[in-house]
Amino acid sequence: MNAITRITEPIVGLNVPAGVGMALEDVSTPALIIDLDAFERNVRRMGYFIKEKGIRHRAHAKTHKSADIALYQIEHGGACGMCCQKVAEAETLVAGGVKDVLVSNQVVDLKKIDRLAQLAKKARVLVCVDDLGNVDDLSAAAIKHGVTIECLVEIDCGAGRCGVEWGKPVVEIAKKITTSDGLKFSGLQAYQGAAQHVHDFEERKAKIEAAVKQVADTVEMLAAENLECDIVGGAGTGTYYFEGSSGVYNEMQCGSYIFMDADYQRVKDDQGDVISEFENSLFIWTSVMSHTKADKAICDAGLKAQSVDSGLPVIFGRDDVEYIKCSDEHGVISDPGNVLKLNDKLKLIPGHCDPTCNVYDWYVCYRNGTVECLWPVTARGMAF
Amino acid sequence: MNAITRITEPIVGLNVPAGVGMALEDVSTPALIIDLDAFERNVRRMGYFIKEKGIRHRAHAKTHKSADIALYQIEHGGACGMCCQKVAEAETLVAGGVKDVLVSNQVVDLKKIDRLAQLAKKARVLVCVDDLGNVDDLSAAAIKHGVTIECLVEIDCGAGRCGVEWGKPVVEIAKKITTSDGLKFSGLQAYQGAAQHVHDFEERKAKIEAAVKQVADTVEMLAAENLECDIVGGAGTGTYYFEGSSGVYNEMQCGSYIFMDADYQRVKDDQGDVISEFENSLFIWTSVMSHTKADKAICDAGLKAQSVDSGLPVIFGRDDVEYIKCSDEHGVISDPGNVLKLNDKLKLIPGHCDPTCNVYDWYVCYRNGTVECLWPVTARGMAF
Repeated sequence: MNAITRITEPIVGLNVPAGVGMALEDVSTPALIIDLDAFERNVRRMGYFIKEKGIRHRAHAKTHKSADIALYQIEHGGACGMCCQKVAEAETLVAGGVKDVLVSNQVVDLKKIDRLAQLAKKARVLVCVDDLGNVDDLSAAAIKHGVTIECLVEIDCGAGRCGVEWGKPVVEIAKKITTSDGLKFSGLQAYQGAAQHVHDFEERKAKIEAAVKQVADTVEMLAAENLECDIVGGAGTGTYYFEGSSGVYNEMQCGSYIFMDADYQRVKDDQGDVISEFENSLFIWTSVMSHTKADKAICDAGLKAQSVDSGLPVIFGRDDVEYIKCSDEHGVISDPGNVLKLNDKLKLIPGHCDPTCNVYDWYVCYRNGTVECLWPVTARGMAF
Repeated sequence: MNAITRITEPIVGLNVPAGVGMALEDVSTPALIIDLDAFERNVRRMGYFIKEKGIRHRAHAKTHKSADIALYQIEHGGACGMCCQKVAEAETLVAGGVKDVLVSNQVVDLKKIDRLAQLAKKARVLVCVDDLGNVDDLSAAAIKHGVTIECLVEIDCGAGRCGVEWGKPVVEIAKKITTSDGLKFSGLQAYQGAAQHVHDFEERKAKIEAAVKQVADTVEMLAAENLECDIVGGAGTGTYYFEGSSGVYNEMQCGSYIFMDADYQRVKDDQGDVISEFENSLFIWTSVMSHTKADKAICDAGLKAQSVDSGLPVIFGRDDVEYIKCSDEHGVISDPGNVLKLNDKLKLIPGHCDPTCNVYDWYVCYRNGTVECLWPVTARGMAF
């Protein structure tokens, strides 16, 4: 584990906003903080789900970019390994002790492919493929380094990003993988990324049912060619229940469930309630830094402290104040009762957790109001 | 200077995507790249402007967070010093060789105030004030460390964030500063942040004229109390011409002009043309990583490679392809002519430069298609 438990004071040069044993109240703001109790419950809940369904969970490290969290998910949430999106993320996860990593994305640059092959000397390495030429390049690198790279053929099952159409195009690539030295065909990648944040239950369910059908039909077509799918992978926090109960997917890839965010609070279950099995455990810790108008406070968490692509943050546990506007360095908080004072602290639920984590160097992990440990955001900014 | 000119290969662990002497074409993507010729012209152009107007320019480091760029602006653009928004930014700028720094923001946390006072042993340090109690805290820290902290009283001249109303509230705080040991009243901070990106020329001009009037009246009221403003500071890239020509403001605080961005391309001059004196010098270097649909390519620069708060990036120098959608790790590029191929490189003009720079560790600086040097984003994530 990389968890830091010895630093007891903030260190500016290392951008560490807290020390172990500090009261949360004293942590420098803005900081990214984790409520460990809630976080741990989230990890365990997903563990119960996969056990009940008899499936695997390859947790997605693109959310947290942290080797500490990855190891915790493996140890306490039954995760079989990790997903990530970049070769550099995979490298930092393996350096941090993870032994089984899927880059759930295409790797087409020759230098990146070479790094991926080198990484396969140290860990089980899997990658997604949606191009025949890419199969040749992956094979050449695997042969060069004497390794096996496992390949999942990616189906675009509705997100409109990477991946080929279900059925024949998948079979064609799978066949090429099986006949390429250094590669192993390990199954399918079928993540419906565009469904995760669909707020309406029935609409979300319908999108996944459509995806499941495409995937099931493709698995059957592959089986007819004696191509077996060890892995049928996909699913995220917004839809995992559907894929996990489908009998077709056998490996979940959820990320956000450990933290949740403000947009996931808008994703509803079949009763029209917020998906309730996972709790908000991740917050931006911010201070009031100016309050010259009676009804408005200014806090120190603006655009550089979060990503607002999915909407503004929500203030946790307060209905008397509201975060209403975000500029580079400031958040404007509506304070109709004039209840906030300079240096008051607030917990913001980020609008979107993944890109918010990517601007911080450290997770400040607390329990019962005291900082328990610090986790580096190991792969922060590791984009290439 | 911190500029790195010896690294000749990418280094994953340090997140360095390029080496000096490499062809730009070989730089790992996504990367943040600077066209040095355009950048240098932008810096010089602002230098000509302030010289012509006989005013100072305290360039804003919140845009670039780089000591290298700060020193370049001072040496080649006639900047008198730097602005920044956070104490941690000020610390990294001073550590990098900057001798004169204004934290153009409120510092109200006692530990941050203490650090600010300590910094005043090493450099001229100025800060903004909008609260009487804060004056006491700043004074106590300055006395404790035996330093002088210069204070600008901030006027909220339309942005609706920090700052007091013009006139009497300013005079009250200024008086308190002049009678507080360890502090010096140095003038006014009057940045109209809400006007910078107003696309329409007349509307933008009107907003600044309103601000100038408030500031001029306040300067007069202060003069009547024998309180002289050494500094009347404000202005940004969208409006600097108005403040700079006002005869009231004497210290510009522009940041984005060195880089520009896609939103500033929508800010028009009095002819309805794009503000043309500054050029796009900052780009996100990205690769096509999937192209399974004839009319769409997927590139490797998504939400973690930029901030889309002010809109999507624009592809530089191309009108045949368009960046139309952004998710965590991917950009969807409309490619109606099916002209893009896997591994093709594109330059994206970021939608908003400041928060985009804050996700990168390095600027890859190139000239004539070759990497000339690497500048660390010294204060990346330095938010507290």
